[in-house]
Amino acid sequence: MAKGLLFVISGPSGVGKGTVGNALREKLPEITYSVSATTRAPRAGEQDGVNYFFKTREEFLGMIERDEMLEYAEYVGNFYGTPRDFVDQTLAQGKDIFLEIEVQGALKVKEKFPEGIFIFLLPPSLDELKDRIRGRGTETQATIDHRMSVAVDEMNLLRHYDYAVVNDEIDFACKRIESIIIAEHCKVHP
Amino acid sequence: MAKGLLFVISGPSGVGKGTVGNALREKLPEITYSVSATTRAPRAGEQDGVNYFFKTREEFLGMIERDEMLEYAEYVGNFYGTPRDFVDQTLAQGKDIFLEIEVQGALKVKEKFPEGIFIFLLPPSLDELKDRIRGRGTETQATIDHRMSVAVDEMNLLRHYDYAVVNDEIDFACKRIESIIIAEHCKVHP
Repeated sequence: MAKGLLFVISGPSGVGKGTVGNALREKLPEITYSVSATTRAPRAGEQDGVNYFFKTREEFLGMIERDEMLEYAEYVGNFYGTPRDFVDQTLAQGKDIFLEIEVQGALKVKEKFPEGIFIFLLPPSLDELKDRIRGRGTETQATIDHRMSVAVDEMNLLRHYDYAVVNDEIDFACKRIESIIIAEHCKVHP
Repeated sequence: MAKGLLFVISGPSGVGKGTVGNALREKLPEITYSVSATTRAPRAGEQDGVNYFFKTREEFLGMIERDEMLEYAEYVGNFYGTPRDFVDQTLAQGKDIFLEIEVQGALKVKEKFPEGIFIFLLPPSLDELKDRIRGRGTETQATIDHRMSVAVDEMNLLRHYDYAVVNDEIDFACKRIESIIIAEHCKVHP
């Protein structure tokens, strides 16, 4: 049985990772999507092992210590991370696994899992990215400027990735990602 | 303008290169297909620059001498080859170019054009390949055995290629090749 491949989809804040990720889940239901671990409390309807692996702070810190996280970060007092175990088990079953993650996290995954295939979602243009960041809501100009400057910094990390996929239209972006999956499975020297 | 990419499709005798090539011409009319040069006489209806570039023996030998052929070979007294000029011009226009060629020729192209993308068509199995070679007509057992042994030798050259595409069904093979084209255009480091 051929081993599965790990695909990591990332890109700057505002590029539409979540939207593309959801569209891929619909179009490619045969692919497994990574489930993150978190220390935050489950919300109504969230299931352990489906939406997240819910962990206590002690459990999470233990996983970090035993190098069981491909990457992790702390946001507003809660830990979020990618358990290596779930990824390894899926790959060992010969199934591909998808990780949808922000740019810094993706680069940490690359350190621990260099054989992964790293896909960077690009906005059609920086102006378009600005519109998307601005369009999110009622942020102040300072917040928008800050997010834009972070996004431009993130764009500079493109060179660490294998593929760049322009997210001009969801369907086109999905088709490109699907093509990358098929092509990677045809590689003679993976 | 982005430069075009050179895709070389090859594979053992009997694998169906011609059939896949014709299907691709229909499905992907936007791609340019390389036109070979030959010293054989034009047949009825064949047009210079469309079916072949028709050359005299002297012209052809001159092109070899000036290193203007990506590869060439002699079959039953006539030369056939791939003029580098046509490939270079097409790529410079930002267009992809496709070369459909036998295994030895493809490896010669790789020496002169290592940045090309080399795709190896695989039979679903060796038994299937034998059926296809046998199915061609009324060859003797000795001829079939010889062709089969050549095909197996050619299969061993797979390791020099970038991609392996199983030609189980024309439509599937075409979809894989189309995916490889799209994925190659998404590469961050081509």
